[in-house]
Amino acid sequence: MHIADLLRGLDYFGTVVFAISGALVAARKGMDWMGFAILATVTGIGGGTLRDLILDRPVFWVSHWEYIVLCVLTSLVTFYFVPHIRRRYSWLLWADAIGLAVFSVLGVQIALSTGTSPFIAIIMGMMTAAFGGLIRDVLAGEPPLLLHREIYASAALSGGVVYALLVVVLHQPIWALVLGFIVALVVR
Amino acid sequence: MHIADLLRGLDYFGTVVFAISGALVAARKGMDWMGFAILATVTGIGGGTLRDLILDRPVFWVSHWEYIVLCVLTSLVTFYFVPHIRRRYSWLLWADAIGLAVFSVLGVQIALSTGTSPFIAIIMGMMTAAFGGLIRDVLAGEPPLLLHREIYASAALSGGVVYALLVVVLHQPIWALVLGFIVALVVR
Amino acid sequence: MHIADLLRGLDYFGTVVFAISGALVAARKGMDWMGFAILATVTGIGGGTLRDLILDRPVFWVSHWEYIVLCVLTSLVTFYFVPHIRRRYSWLLWADAIGLAVFSVLGVQIALSTGTSPFIAIIMGMMTAAFGGLIRDVLAGEPPLLLHREIYASAALSGGVVYALLVVVLHQPIWALVLGFIVALVVR
Repeated sequence: MHIADLLRGLDYFGTVVFAISGALVAARKGMDWMGFAILATVTGIGGGTLRDLILDRPVFWVSHWEYIVLCVLTSLVTFYFVPHIRRRYSWLLWADAIGLAVFSVLGVQIALSTGTSPFIAIIMGMMTAAFGGLIRDVLAGEPPLLLHREIYASAALSGGVVYALLVVVLHQPIWALVLGFIVALVVR
Repeated sequence: MHIADLLRGLDYFGTVVFAISGALVAARKGMDWMGFAILATVTGIGGGTLRDLILDRPVFWVSHWEYIVLCVLTSLVTFYFVPHIRRRYSWLLWADAIGLAVFSVLGVQIALSTGTSPFIAIIMGMMTAAFGGLIRDVLAGEPPLLLHREIYASAALSGGVVYALLVVVLHQPIWALVLGFIVALVVR
Repeated sequence: MHIADLLRGLDYFGTVVFAISGALVAARKGMDWMGFAILATVTGIGGGTLRDLILDRPVFWVSHWEYIVLCVLTSLVTFYFVPHIRRRYSWLLWADAIGLAVFSVLGVQIALSTGTSPFIAIIMGMMTAAFGGLIRDVLAGEPPLLLHREIYASAALSGGVVYALLVVVLHQPIWALVLGFIVALVVR
């Protein structure tokens, strides 16, 4: 397996997981299916969109529209199953934690690939990981998890730092991905 | 009349109508004239600004500053007349519906002109139509209409779909404009 | 002293002052140190980030990461001292007023340097000055100061107008900086 495939697969995975978190918030707020679809999509692609705007890259989903389809499908599946799910808030926290771990690492990877310094790459990783959940909470009118739970941002930060260290110092991109992800998840 | 003039005229019209909706929300919140001007301007140009950033086009109002003037003038006129208006909420819903119908069609048209796929163009149309109203509601501290009224987003979606179909399949830009607008308005 | 140094110094100063305002809002909301750091950073760099995105310049802090460090350090110092500060709200209003005065002038200066018309430059100055505080308030779930206190936006506007007049008509960049700053502060 090429590393590019691994990265793409992880990116889809993080997008789906964040889309689920958006749909679960839509469920808490009693939204209809359109609200589910929009909140899931904004949560799934929001972080990457801001990252691409700031790094002045083409926004990823304009040429890769499968991300939008993925978010909408995820939201519809969640809409269908949500009445049968118990302990939704605990699922929401899990979805958030996994999405955060994936995107903090991928955000650093993409920022480094455009030639930013490792420090800024780590900041971009945090931003990619955190921004989707932030607009989700603002749009739903909830106090942002990011600002009220220290551990949320710390997890994104530590995952990104581990990844950046392993890539920049040791040139181990695959281990960096795996370990960065695990660290972000465990810290959380 | 050239189609470029028609598009420009429609764009002014949509901007004014959205600016009115912003000013009416400012009125509901008891803001002063500066709050009117800012909320009207953000609502009027917000959707197009996000569209241009994501498509990596020059942001339209930086070279066409008449859009800003239009929003500010609209807000001042609304500020003056608002004490005499009855049933403001019903006016707000109308202004929203018309602005949405105009911008969902124009957003698709602009996205197609930059060479995006029809699917992404339709998404950009929805975004252009919906984003101004979304930030208006977030800034005013109201639950976003977009997320709580299915019909709102469905209208933008169907107007954009009709427009894209007529342009891409049948090459009828003027009919596409008119029918897309009517469909978006009727669905709403 | 070169004018470039003066501008850079003023920019650091405005960033620190806005970061303080973000940290003081974090204190009002009882956030932990991570919330302080994030809200201070978003407030400090938010306005300039939007300005650079809209003017299609490279986002300033991607190459000048000292702005991020400055915001985080400021937030940590504020976090440490905040239990000892009395009348925090009055400090918040002061920090806001000073940051606003600095950024309204600097925003105009940067926009003019990219060749925009003076009118758009003044709008960009207002936006640079106002946007950081706006997202600060939205993220913290408070009604935006900008929309509820006419004087807030008027100050940014008048500082920018004075600066633009002195630079464009009289070619006096240093006097323009000083007077624009003073006018914005006094109006407020």
